Amino acid sequence: MTVHNEKTLPLFMETNRKVKSYEEALGVLYWDLRTGAPRKGMDTRSESIGALSGDMFKLSTSPELGEYLATLEEPQNFESLSEIEQRLVTETRKDYDRSVKIPQKLYQEYVVLAAQTENKWEEAKANNDFAGFQPYLEKVIGYQQQFIDLWGAKDTRYDTLLDQYEPGMTTKELDRVFGGLREQLVPLAAAIAASPHQPDTSFLQQNYDKEAQKAYSKFILNEMGYDFDAGRLDESVHPFATGLNPGDVRITTRYLVDDVTSALFGTIHEGGHALYEQNIMPELIGTTLCSGTSMGIHESQSRFWENVIGRSKPFWERYYGDLQQKFPGQLNVPVEQFYRGINVVQPSLIRIEADELTYNLHIIIRYEIEKLIFNEGAKASDLPAIWNDKYREYLGITPPNDAEGVLQDVHWSGGMFGYFPSYSLGNMYAAQIADTMERELPDFWGNVGRGELHPIKNWLSERIYKYGKLRTPSELIQNITGKPLDPQHLVHYLERKYKDIYKL
Amino acid sequence: MTVHNEKTLPLFMETNRKVKSYEEALGVLYWDLRTGAPRKGMDTRSESIGALSGDMFKLSTSPELGEYLATLEEPQNFESLSEIEQRLVTETRKDYDRSVKIPQKLYQEYVVLAAQTENKWEEAKANNDFAGFQPYLEKVIGYQQQFIDLWGAKDTRYDTLLDQYEPGMTTKELDRVFGGLREQLVPLAAAIAASPHQPDTSFLQQNYDKEAQKAYSKFILNEMGYDFDAGRLDESVHPFATGLNPGDVRITTRYLVDDVTSALFGTIHEGGHALYEQNIMPELIGTTLCSGTSMGIHESQSRFWENVIGRSKPFWERYYGDLQQKFPGQLNVPVEQFYRGINVVQPSLIRIEADELTYNLHIIIRYEIEKLIFNEGAKASDLPAIWNDKYREYLGITPPNDAEGVLQDVHWSGGMFGYFPSYSLGNMYAAQIADTMERELPDFWGNVGRGELHPIKNWLSERIYKYGKLRTPSELIQNITGKPLDPQHLVHYLERKYKDIYKL
Repeated sequence: MTVHNEKTLPLFMETNRKVKSYEEALGVLYWDLRTGAPRKGMDTRSESIGALSGDMFKLSTSPELGEYLATLEEPQNFESLSEIEQRLVTETRKDYDRSVKIPQKLYQEYVVLAAQTENKWEEAKANNDFAGFQPYLEKVIGYQQQFIDLWGAKDTRYDTLLDQYEPGMTTKELDRVFGGLREQLVPLAAAIAASPHQPDTSFLQQNYDKEAQKAYSKFILNEMGYDFDAGRLDESVHPFATGLNPGDVRITTRYLVDDVTSALFGTIHEGGHALYEQNIMPELIGTTLCSGTSMGIHESQSRFWENVIGRSKPFWERYYGDLQQKFPGQLNVPVEQFYRGINVVQPSLIRIEADELTYNLHIIIRYEIEKLIFNEGAKASDLPAIWNDKYREYLGITPPNDAEGVLQDVHWSGGMFGYFPSYSLGNMYAAQIADTMERELPDFWGNVGRGELHPIKNWLSERIYKYGKLRTPSELIQNITGKPLDPQHLVHYLERKYKDIYKL
Repeated sequence: MTVHNEKTLPLFMETNRKVKSYEEALGVLYWDLRTGAPRKGMDTRSESIGALSGDMFKLSTSPELGEYLATLEEPQNFESLSEIEQRLVTETRKDYDRSVKIPQKLYQEYVVLAAQTENKWEEAKANNDFAGFQPYLEKVIGYQQQFIDLWGAKDTRYDTLLDQYEPGMTTKELDRVFGGLREQLVPLAAAIAASPHQPDTSFLQQNYDKEAQKAYSKFILNEMGYDFDAGRLDESVHPFATGLNPGDVRITTRYLVDDVTSALFGTIHEGGHALYEQNIMPELIGTTLCSGTSMGIHESQSRFWENVIGRSKPFWERYYGDLQQKFPGQLNVPVEQFYRGINVVQPSLIRIEADELTYNLHIIIRYEIEKLIFNEGAKASDLPAIWNDKYREYLGITPPNDAEGVLQDVHWSGGMFGYFPSYSLGNMYAAQIADTMERELPDFWGNVGRGELHPIKNWLSERIYKYGKLRTPSELIQNITGKPLDPQHLVHYLERKYKDIYKL
């Protein structure tokens, strides 16, 4: 190690630890806001969150940090660093350059605007009032355009936004994979709609006791290998998982008394996110590498557990009996009928209520619209018409109003352009990883059918979870599956599943 | 306003707001630790708390803050400040001088030692091992002695410690009030013990459904005027209240299935603390004046609600029926018998289990021992013998071991010398305030007997709660009752109450 590193490295690591400490504290504050913080304290709490966020931003953009980075990046210094330290330097450089290019004043204006726009969005959605929302959305888009100018456009302007959520992901790559997906899923969805063998779902609409749902959620999380000594399960309006540190990864869910599947699959989904964060290697704790590597890989884990495992036949051959016992006399249909009921495909207007198959079409629509905005100059005022056209084309239905159309998601109001593709990337990653897992884990579906899920958790921990941000998404996929992202795995998975269920 | 204030005042106020923001964030983190944060995440969380506390300490001792204070304290500047601003300058100066005198290194060493000592105390208490604890306690006392040297001794060395928790309180004053108290309470306790009319408490030992206890706790909090839109009720091992801001004041309680009174009076106690913090005037929000003025005044409010109101006969004439309904068939004794049962006096070894009367003797013992340590040079090794002697003298019982004796409280291991007197100050303040309230509020006990508690809450809000730290404890007592602290109010209250219950 050179003289420079001896002085600089500890200072750099200390700064990084502190940023992580602030991140964790803010994580607790946000968790608290969403799990029952009293209404009347919110305004003052926002100030507290603002003060901490501001200090964290200052720390992440300090000239000192810039100097540490410059020193550690000198080739003779960089080479002497450990793998973790090298990655930390690379990742911190990326965040540093991104943050430091935004003038603090511009950033603060934008934070205020985004908060206002989210409020406006809530109103607009409730009142079906796109016109009232449009000027705010225009401004948010304007700021995003400014950010792209400041950060510098990659291959296309939209690529700059994508890279925030899925490092290395490009429009070129997404065109390739989404193109293949769309071409094959649109006809599959049509064939399913035309099938005479539609599953019965009426038995799902009953009054399901909330405490029994809670108990079953906990039971399933335990089965998955979620560690309750390193987490907790609470309730919130929108379910989420938050990894504060690997010893404290919290899940929330929402219990609907008239729909037993909502909490059930919501819990398994968030449980998948949580398994990821609980199993990051101890060496990364206290550094900013201690979190999932990208939104897409994170989503692949929630969706793997929710859909590939949680909506599979072997899973329910094992767990349906327990579910029936929790709701005595209520679930009288055979397991086959239950399995078909929870896998119904139905083109619908609302993304978050969509099934495994059509979900991807909802995402592709949003992806194409975001490209139009940032690469083709589409205006906020054009969006309702574009939206409705695409829903007609891909899903065969037209939103009766903007509340159920272009206004349905919160993401754009908060400026999260480039985020939506993560959801479908998650589905594709999950299917591709599952194919490798099936080959590598002996008697894979036999194990699932016996409720032996820990080998799956351990396999994923070894290949994905433990690395945190130490590997990029594309490195992970290449290492695990021996090739880059390939949408055919998802297409085959969906074809196999639905050809059986719909007897195509 | 002078030129100086125009520049300095906003900077000073901004610094203060920031300190308060950090305080609030830390408050949420501590609340979280005590209400179910997962065990395995604690170590990493401690780092996060450490980082935030360190930054808050740095901010509270910054040279800039020292300059703002010096400027604002110049007479022509100070005079032009509002009442709130003036008080903020005075209070901040006090904290600043106190903190700035402790070298950061010494402070950090001490924080580590105090944490270790608390762990050691837990072990020592569990194993009845004072010898193992003694060297740690010696060190903690050593640091406290150093702090007194750095801060400067007031009238006596112990006065310097007292002032931390009860601003302006002195050994001289406490000798006066505790002397009077001890002289009159020791014979009263003896007379009670000798009475042939001992209350029956056997009916209290039953199995009380936890959910029913919870529901009753919420009901009573509502009756007291606790605002659930500005707070929440949770469970923790040791009940506490925490005021994050007046819109978010949280209570915890502990439900014992074999003792209905524990959660009941615990909840009312913490509810009293919470009413104080919920009703601080909006003008103080976001400043460090937005909290209770002292531990003693805070404790006066919890004890007023718990004892003066919550253990009174009129209160139970109104609420006993509701309690009976919550536990059908379990509480069959008449209200008079219930009232006597919850007011039993019994000299006992453990402070936190003591009744209203003997509680004060537990405190006086601790006060006298603390004085011996800091004013007379008593050593840690002397404490078990001193402790046991005093229990024999004041309470007529001798601890069979140190676990139930000198090791019972956590306070000393954390260096909280000077804190204990607050508890009895609270009892004395409460009784003195209650005497004024009885005179000023028309039909006081009639209202309590009808469950009309809001006039009481409003009266206390107007005279105490709203001021936060804008008034000192002695100003409050003088303004409300027209005279300084007088222990006779507590003595008369206890005599009146127990002469009736024990037919003395």
